[in-house]
Amino acid sequence: MIQGIGASPGIAIGKAFVLPNWEWDLPEQKIDVGDLAREFERLYEGIRTSKVEIEQMKDELREVVGPEESSIFDAHIAILEDPVFMNEIQGIIQRQYKAAEVAVKEAIDHFVTMFDLLDDEYMKERALDIKDVGNRLLKHLLGAPEITLPSDTQPFILIAKELSPSQLAHLNPNHVLGIATLAGSITSHSSIMARALGVPLVVGIESKLEEAIQTGDMLIIDGEHGIVILEPEQRSVEQYTMKQKLHQEKKQQLRGIVGVQSVTKDGKELELSANISSLKELEVALASGTSGVGLFRTEFLYMDRSRLPREDEQYEVYRGAAEKLDNKPLIIRTLDIGGDKQLDYFELPEEENPFLGYRAIRICLDKPSLFKTQLRAILRASYYGNVKIMYPLISSVEEVRAANNLLEQCKQELRAEGIGFSEEIEVGIMIELPAAVVIADMLAEEVDFFSIGTNDLIQFTLAVDRMNEQISYMYEPFHPAVLRMLKLTIEAAKRTGIHVGVCGEMAGDLKALPIWLALDVDELSMSAQAILPVKEKLLTLTQQASREVFDRIMACRTSAQIHEILSPQPVKAERENEQLAERQTAERQPAAKLSK
Amino acid sequence: MIQGIGASPGIAIGKAFVLPNWEWDLPEQKIDVGDLAREFERLYEGIRTSKVEIEQMKDELREVVGPEESSIFDAHIAILEDPVFMNEIQGIIQRQYKAAEVAVKEAIDHFVTMFDLLDDEYMKERALDIKDVGNRLLKHLLGAPEITLPSDTQPFILIAKELSPSQLAHLNPNHVLGIATLAGSITSHSSIMARALGVPLVVGIESKLEEAIQTGDMLIIDGEHGIVILEPEQRSVEQYTMKQKLHQEKKQQLRGIVGVQSVTKDGKELELSANISSLKELEVALASGTSGVGLFRTEFLYMDRSRLPREDEQYEVYRGAAEKLDNKPLIIRTLDIGGDKQLDYFELPEEENPFLGYRAIRICLDKPSLFKTQLRAILRASYYGNVKIMYPLISSVEEVRAANNLLEQCKQELRAEGIGFSEEIEVGIMIELPAAVVIADMLAEEVDFFSIGTNDLIQFTLAVDRMNEQISYMYEPFHPAVLRMLKLTIEAAKRTGIHVGVCGEMAGDLKALPIWLALDVDELSMSAQAILPVKEKLLTLTQQASREVFDRIMACRTSAQIHEILSPQPVKAERENEQLAERQTAERQPAAKLSK
Repeated sequence: MIQGIGASPGIAIGKAFVLPNWEWDLPEQKIDVGDLAREFERLYEGIRTSKVEIEQMKDELREVVGPEESSIFDAHIAILEDPVFMNEIQGIIQRQYKAAEVAVKEAIDHFVTMFDLLDDEYMKERALDIKDVGNRLLKHLLGAPEITLPSDTQPFILIAKELSPSQLAHLNPNHVLGIATLAGSITSHSSIMARALGVPLVVGIESKLEEAIQTGDMLIIDGEHGIVILEPEQRSVEQYTMKQKLHQEKKQQLRGIVGVQSVTKDGKELELSANISSLKELEVALASGTSGVGLFRTEFLYMDRSRLPREDEQYEVYRGAAEKLDNKPLIIRTLDIGGDKQLDYFELPEEENPFLGYRAIRICLDKPSLFKTQLRAILRASYYGNVKIMYPLISSVEEVRAANNLLEQCKQELRAEGIGFSEEIEVGIMIELPAAVVIADMLAEEVDFFSIGTNDLIQFTLAVDRMNEQISYMYEPFHPAVLRMLKLTIEAAKRTGIHVGVCGEMAGDLKALPIWLALDVDELSMSAQAILPVKEKLLTLTQQASREVFDRIMACRTSAQIHEILSPQPVKAERENEQLAERQTAERQPAAKLSK
Repeated sequence: MIQGIGASPGIAIGKAFVLPNWEWDLPEQKIDVGDLAREFERLYEGIRTSKVEIEQMKDELREVVGPEESSIFDAHIAILEDPVFMNEIQGIIQRQYKAAEVAVKEAIDHFVTMFDLLDDEYMKERALDIKDVGNRLLKHLLGAPEITLPSDTQPFILIAKELSPSQLAHLNPNHVLGIATLAGSITSHSSIMARALGVPLVVGIESKLEEAIQTGDMLIIDGEHGIVILEPEQRSVEQYTMKQKLHQEKKQQLRGIVGVQSVTKDGKELELSANISSLKELEVALASGTSGVGLFRTEFLYMDRSRLPREDEQYEVYRGAAEKLDNKPLIIRTLDIGGDKQLDYFELPEEENPFLGYRAIRICLDKPSLFKTQLRAILRASYYGNVKIMYPLISSVEEVRAANNLLEQCKQELRAEGIGFSEEIEVGIMIELPAAVVIADMLAEEVDFFSIGTNDLIQFTLAVDRMNEQISYMYEPFHPAVLRMLKLTIEAAKRTGIHVGVCGEMAGDLKALPIWLALDVDELSMSAQAILPVKEKLLTLTQQASREVFDRIMACRTSAQIHEILSPQPVKAERENEQLAERQTAERQPAAKLSK
């Protein structure tokens, strides 16, 4: 049994298929001076073939997952056109008289090592892209066969060193029971995609496993607890089959409440909507009976490609989502790049503290034409559904007004061009900075709705980067200061009479549900997977009892006390029983007690 | 005239002394295999001599500036003992048959380039250290003469490529009228030291100047506006001499209020105290009539050395400060490293967002023995003055209690050892996180005083790293959210009846003074240079009028409006006059007005 990191929940039991590493036999002898021209011709031919192949993959994938996810391959094509990468390869051929395949291999190794050295998640992902593309090019130069996943065998558990989002996008969920990767992190795009697809995934299993697991080995994967069991005993198989069955029954049971209204026992209705990054995730959300989309993260439309998406490209995606939602609300958050989200083709400055840097609305207000392209696309899509606009990272009244000014310009342009859009389109903001909380009353008068981004809000309030392992234990949603900030924000919205939702991870946390009920929040927006469990819990609660719980936690001075109220520890209950027993004993022996 | 960056205010007029770069004639021929042993012997001899020399410099400097600043040379000695650096040099001699001086030069270049590449302020400072030490070693290997500043000439203006704190520490302020450096930043230790010493400094003048300015050239330096004038015309000399005179008169005038009580016209008294990093800065503060030390930044005791300072070493510095202050309050802030402050010998993790990372009290609670050494030193010093302890970066009640627990342990140990300390020593915290503001009422009940660290508080509230050029314009002390946070904090302290001060840069900002008076703050702690200007302004204000101003700014929704109230723009006044004139014209022609 190997302990990894659970990155996408679910249990898989089946045979392993180990994705082979691309390994090559490279020619050792140097080339003759006279053959230089031929070697360059081979290189160019290999590039052409690779590009055609990538374009084909992209077209195929577009049918399956839609245009926004297939565009990751634009980044791959961009690498084949990158002058720095190509110069490196050509230089090695020309100056060192090495064969084209050797030059490609050395150039890949050079860039991958360099990017890996930088110890930056984004750069590591870029290194993965270069490896992908470089290997494809090598394959053509060497005439090697493509490595494909078996589609004619039984469904299998995929074992890989690492998996790029592009590889994951290729997987057929019907053939892949689960995945375990040696590298990877729970926050990578691949992990996010696995969760969206509902494929169990364990990442970060130790590297020695690479040799231990062979294609055909029996495996159990527990994607919730990050466990991989190699050649399990019969007892384990039975145990996990039972767990899997319970898991599926639970899923089945949750399916039963898809159509049920999300309302407490005493009649408080709560919109449960979804956070999505793609149309594919929207499908999952709709199947879970989402009441709408509380957060459409548009930055994924901008990522993994070679240039900014055009207005029409964006419009199609937004319109597609709006139509699929059939008049249910669709809150589109404007571009939220910077921080930990980078674009290949858009050079952002290197920053000491990217979370406190050039990000989100700050970039958009600084680059009005970029921003207006998106606003126009959203406005046009608003003609086809219940679309709303949301600005991220708002810190002041001035920023809201500046963004609304640009929005007004876009509306005037569209009117002049005779293009339809919803004149009543609502505009809201993310409340995710302490500044926004403190002036929530002022901001509420400028917008139609608030959505509280708890992740960033907690990080800034406590000055804790939750991705930083050394202090991530301090990231505490149930901190008295955080709860007061939530209360301040929601009360300000209620007083002004605007809609208020929550779209950070706390929205999907069952433990936090009484807080939202007590504060009378209008909407919780969460990952599609969380909607039904939250609804199930909601159906058992009352707003009245939630208010009593909330009053108790607001009187607490420490997070430990708050956790104790929200989820009484069985240990504590036992201790209370013991104390009760002791007291009863004492009462029966008053003299003995007094003599102590 | 060249525009640089003003790093330490004041005007200097005089002749240039250009600090020569250490340039060397290196032997070109390779050494014989038979001479390897001799070459190594030369290297070791050079290292020994360099070490002796550095130790001497350190001892000399200790007399002048005290033990804490002289310890920067420990870092230099550590480099000469660094196995990685030495292996590099030895490797070049042994494998490439190069002379010791060539090997040293190449090793320096290698490490400096590598550190510079990292584009990290801290690493750049380390590169400077390696250059310093390496050049000293080269000097001995080549038998070159030491470059010293002239002490027998007229006082001069020093021009240098860059200046390390160790070089600056050597300067005699009586010989140096001012400094201009080609590199450097306003936040470097050198700049902080120049301000403390009162030497005008301009940094970041363009590199072409290096050739343009010659020793003996006439120069004017304006350290406030970052201006350097080369070979000024007579008119400029007169103009700046006048400015200098006014500056000195102003200084003289301010000297006149050193002994005056700091109190408003209507009798509100305000403690004006100093932020210091060393005993040297304390001297300047005392000369400005400081009412105490509101912030002793102890991290400088830990920086620029090769190991942690021992309890006794710290105790001596703290006791020295306490005695010099003669029972005026001395607030010692416990170790505040991490973020942008690193220690050579204490490996901190590489962090994506160091401001939101492993810092300050978080490190101290994680390393109790490190923390207790400092607490014991502070406690022991408390026997000799009015010493108080302040914990930085507090985010929760739990942290205060954990820190106080360790403090209590230290007290018990000292009692057991029979070592004296003040049993009444007060304990306070920095309020610099939004979380601390929001639970200020709870925190107030745990401590004896608050000190508001406005710099960090503003950064976290607005999610703006003010060192990030791209968004530093968003760092806005007069943001409505910031003002509300200040109000929340100060009112919480007042209600609980504890002392409340401000020790961020806003404390020394004349524009903010009405805010502090309106909120009835007890203490403002600032750089020594700011004390007298703030007092001068304070003497002209009333608390009553300040309260009226404060009420007006609290009604503002934008920073622009707040700035307008706090410092009415002449432009605006003009515009108002114009509008007034227009209105008067209109009133004289009512019919014409109505017809519009």
